[in-house]
Amino acid sequence: MKLGRLNHVGVATPSIENSIAFYRDVMGAEVVREPFDLPTQGVKVCFVDTPNSQIELIEPLGESSPIHGFLARNPAGGQHHVCYEVPDIHEAKAWFEGRGCKVLGEPRIGAHGTLIFFVHPKDMGGVLTEIMETPKH
Amino acid sequence: MKLGRLNHVGVATPSIENSIAFYRDVMGAEVVREPFDLPTQGVKVCFVDTPNSQIELIEPLGESSPIHGFLARNPAGGQHHVCYEVPDIHEAKAWFEGRGCKVLGEPRIGAHGTLIFFVHPKDMGGVLTEIMETPKH
Repeated sequence: MKLGRLNHVGVATPSIENSIAFYRDVMGAEVVREPFDLPTQGVKVCFVDTPNSQIELIEPLGESSPIHGFLARNPAGGQHHVCYEVPDIHEAKAWFEGRGCKVLGEPRIGAHGTLIFFVHPKDMGGVLTEIMETPKH
Repeated sequence: MKLGRLNHVGVATPSIENSIAFYRDVMGAEVVREPFDLPTQGVKVCFVDTPNSQIELIEPLGESSPIHGFLARNPAGGQHHVCYEVPDIHEAKAWFEGRGCKVLGEPRIGAHGTLIFFVHPKDMGGVLTEIMETPKH
């Protein structure tokens, strides 16, 4: 497997609305995508474009959101995960599992509409890592 | 100010040597730059290229390294900061200070040989943020 594009850095926030204002007014973001709910992941999502990548703002959605714990430890929000692209999600899953890395669940549709999975940070140098199949278009 | 390129994601590690092996063998990195000491920042540094950005591996250098505390809280390492490019470091400093963000010290030479500063995470949605002047070449 080759290291793919850094698709995005996932940033948890208690308020996407406030974070959008911050990225627009302080960071100078020119392209902020429309926020949307991703109920299967328990998050509300908003992509902010940089010239070469994206920031994925994620806010808890529902009582069982997986990022409640992160925000309890980091009430102001913070860096949550890093996401790399791969050409084939199933090959990537077999690759990581073959190297002893704990893949968290089966591939499922992620925020960009393609299949994704997460790899446990304990096997990734402490970095929660999302692997996503590159969109075809 | 316009949001610039995501130059790199800074990842703290207790061992750059082990992290290089991980990024090469598990993540599939094809371009791993030569590690070097950056004594003014108290870190050893190694850049790993992705097709569109970089991961900056940082390991403590010396007793007073600013990342000892981070590694005490995260012994396996983890995401430490995010770095964006700007065309003019002094304009950027005035911009952030004018918006009430705490800039940590004066601009100084960073790992890419251009001027950088950090902005306190408390004013940046919990994200320790490095601002670097884009290399001219």
